Amino acid sequence: MQDNQTLQSIRYQRGLLSILDQLQLPDESVYIPIHSVDDAWKAIHTMSIRGAPAIAVCGVLSLAVELHHSRSKLESIAAVQHFVTDQLNYLSTARPTAVNMAEAAATIIDYLIPLSDKQVDLSLYIDDLLDFMEKFLEHDLADNRSIGRYGAETIRNNNPSPQQLTVLTHCNTGSLATVGFGTALGVVRQLAANNDLKLVYFTETRPYNQGSRLTAYELVHDRIPHSMICDSMAGLLMRTQPIHAVVVGADCVTANGDTANKIGTYQLAILAKYHHIPFYIAAPTTSIDLTKKTGAEIVIEQRPSREMTTIKGINIAAEGVQVWNPAFDVTPAALITSIITEHGVFKPDELEEKLLSLQKKVST
Amino acid sequence: MQDNQTLQSIRYQRGLLSILDQLQLPDESVYIPIHSVDDAWKAIHTMSIRGAPAIAVCGVLSLAVELHHSRSKLESIAAVQHFVTDQLNYLSTARPTAVNMAEAAATIIDYLIPLSDKQVDLSLYIDDLLDFMEKFLEHDLADNRSIGRYGAETIRNNNPSPQQLTVLTHCNTGSLATVGFGTALGVVRQLAANNDLKLVYFTETRPYNQGSRLTAYELVHDRIPHSMICDSMAGLLMRTQPIHAVVVGADCVTANGDTANKIGTYQLAILAKYHHIPFYIAAPTTSIDLTKKTGAEIVIEQRPSREMTTIKGINIAAEGVQVWNPAFDVTPAALITSIITEHGVFKPDELEEKLLSLQKKVST
Repeated sequence: MQDNQTLQSIRYQRGLLSILDQLQLPDESVYIPIHSVDDAWKAIHTMSIRGAPAIAVCGVLSLAVELHHSRSKLESIAAVQHFVTDQLNYLSTARPTAVNMAEAAATIIDYLIPLSDKQVDLSLYIDDLLDFMEKFLEHDLADNRSIGRYGAETIRNNNPSPQQLTVLTHCNTGSLATVGFGTALGVVRQLAANNDLKLVYFTETRPYNQGSRLTAYELVHDRIPHSMICDSMAGLLMRTQPIHAVVVGADCVTANGDTANKIGTYQLAILAKYHHIPFYIAAPTTSIDLTKKTGAEIVIEQRPSREMTTIKGINIAAEGVQVWNPAFDVTPAALITSIITEHGVFKPDELEEKLLSLQKKVST
Repeated sequence: MQDNQTLQSIRYQRGLLSILDQLQLPDESVYIPIHSVDDAWKAIHTMSIRGAPAIAVCGVLSLAVELHHSRSKLESIAAVQHFVTDQLNYLSTARPTAVNMAEAAATIIDYLIPLSDKQVDLSLYIDDLLDFMEKFLEHDLADNRSIGRYGAETIRNNNPSPQQLTVLTHCNTGSLATVGFGTALGVVRQLAANNDLKLVYFTETRPYNQGSRLTAYELVHDRIPHSMICDSMAGLLMRTQPIHAVVVGADCVTANGDTANKIGTYQLAILAKYHHIPFYIAAPTTSIDLTKKTGAEIVIEQRPSREMTTIKGINIAAEGVQVWNPAFDVTPAALITSIITEHGVFKPDELEEKLLSLQKKVST
C-alpha cells in the first residue's frame, strides 16, 4: 500500500510500473512508464530516478513487470532463476555506488536458491516470486517511517530545551529518493509532524541540484518551513545560526560506519565537527554493506563534465574548461555521531555488532 | 600603461572609460561605455564589474571622466571639492563589503584638502586631480605584479621538493577582478610563469558562478592547466589530491587579520586547516582596513534570491522556495596562514604593526 499524503516517486500495480521523471522536476510532474529492466536501467543511469532506496525498488519492480509479462516464455524454474539472476546483476551496474540495488539483488537471488530444490508448480513459483519482489515497495515505506521516528526522537532528546529545532540536510533523501516519506528528509518530516521543527536548511547540492530541484519541491509541497543555501554557505550558516543537527542520507555504509553519500557530505561532516554540531546518517539497513570493511572499498562514480557545465542544456561555464566531477564522497566514521536505521540508532563503532545480532534474531 | 598580455576589465583614456561586461561573460566579450559616476554605480551594483580592486578603479575613473566633461561647469576649487567628495561617497555605497572603493575615496578626499588652502589656478587644479585619479589604474597593476611575485615565492619556498605545485583558489581574483594580472589568480599566474604550477583547481563559486564564468574564462584564455570543481567538492579534493596551498582574495581585511571574502571562503579555510594545507589571502594593502579592529565590524551584503534560483534568467529551483543568500563571509585570522600584499607577506598577528610602520616610512 502506498502513502498518498506525500509525493510518489514510483507508481506500481502488478504488470504496470511508472516513475516520476525527476529530470523534469520541478518544472513538470511527468510519470514515465517502465516496461522492462532495460527501461529501468536507463532511467536509473540517466537519473530520471535517483536515491539509493528508490533505485532499488524501481529496479526490482521493473523486473517484476518484465517477469509478469514474460511468464509464458519461461518454460522452467531454472529458466526463471537464470533470467532473474541475469537481470538483477545487470540492474546493479546502473549506479555502482548505491548499494541498495546490489543488496536487493542478493536478497532475491538468495530467495531463488532454496526453491530450486523443490518440485513446485512453475506458475505458483512465479507468483510467489512476484509477491516477494512487490514487498520491497511496502518495506521501504515502513522502514522510512521507522527511521523518521527514531531520528526525530534522537534529535529531540539531544536538545532538552523545549525550543523548536533547526536542522541542515543535503541532497534529496525524501519521497522522491525513496518510495515515500524519505530517510534524512523523513526525519525532518517527522520533526515537523511532531511540531518540533523551526526550520530546515538544505543545500542546493551542486552539480545536479537535487536540493534546489527536488528537496525544495518536496518542502514547498509539504509546507515545511525551509531555507535553501548554496553548498558554499554551510560554514557561515553553522557559525552564525543555531543548527541543532545535520542529517543526511547514505548510498553505502560500510561495516566500520564509513559512509558514501552525495558529494559534499564529507565536508559538511568536517564543518559540523568544527562547530560542535551532531552529524547523523539516516539510512535503511539495506544501505549498509557489511561485506565492505571500510570506505576504502567503496567504488566512487565519476559523472560526465556536462552535468557541471550545463543546466537544462544551457552552458553555464566558459568554453573549454576542464572539470573534476566525482558524484560521491566517503565520510569517515570518526566524523559521524550516529547512524539512524529502521532498527534503531547506532554509533558507528557498534554498527556491525548490532546488525549481526539483528540478522541472527531474524534467522533464528 | 595597461598590460595587453592579459585580459582587460577596464579600458581608459582621458574622458573615455569602458568596462568588459562580466554579466555577459563567458558568452560574449562586450565593452560597455561608462559616461558618469551614475553609470559606474549601476555597473558595480549589478556586478557588470566586480572584484574589490576593479570596483575601486572603475569608480575612480568614472569620476575622472565626469570631472573632465564637467570642468566648464565647475566654477571654483571649492565646487570641485564638493562635487568630488559627494560622488566618492555615493560610489562607496554600491557594494558595501569591498573596502577598496571606500579606501580610494578616502585617499582622494585627503588629497583634496591641502590644496584647498592654496591659491591655485582652477584648471591646473583639475588637471592635477585627474592625474592623481588616473594613477589608480597603474598602481593597481603594479601592486598585483608584486603580490604575484611575493605569493609565488612564498608557496614555492614552503615546498622544498622541486615538484610542480597544485593549488586551489575560489571566486575570480584575476584580470577581471582587477585592472590586470590579478591578486590570488596573479599568484597562480606567476607560479605558471615560473614553471612551478602543475595544476590550479578552482571552485565554480555559487551562487554567482564567478569561478565557472570568469576564472574559467581567464585560465582557458591563458592556457593555464586547471580543473574546475563544485564548491561541495573541496573537502574530497583536499583528502584525495595533493594540494600545496589554498590562495584566495579579499574584499576587506581588518587590523587583526580577519578577512571578508566571497561566500565559501570561510569553509575552505576550515577544510584547509583540517587537511593541514596552508591558506593564503592575496590582497593589495588598499583592501586592508585598519580602522576596523576585527571581522565583527565588517558589513556583510545580502544579495537577492533570484541570484540563487535563476541562471541566465532561467529558473533552476522549485517555485516558492525560500533562500538565504549572504554574498560574503568572514574568515577568522586564526585560520589564515599569511596575507600576501604588494609590500610583502605577513602573518595575521603582525599585519597591523607592519602596515603602520610602512605608512610611517611613506609619510616621513
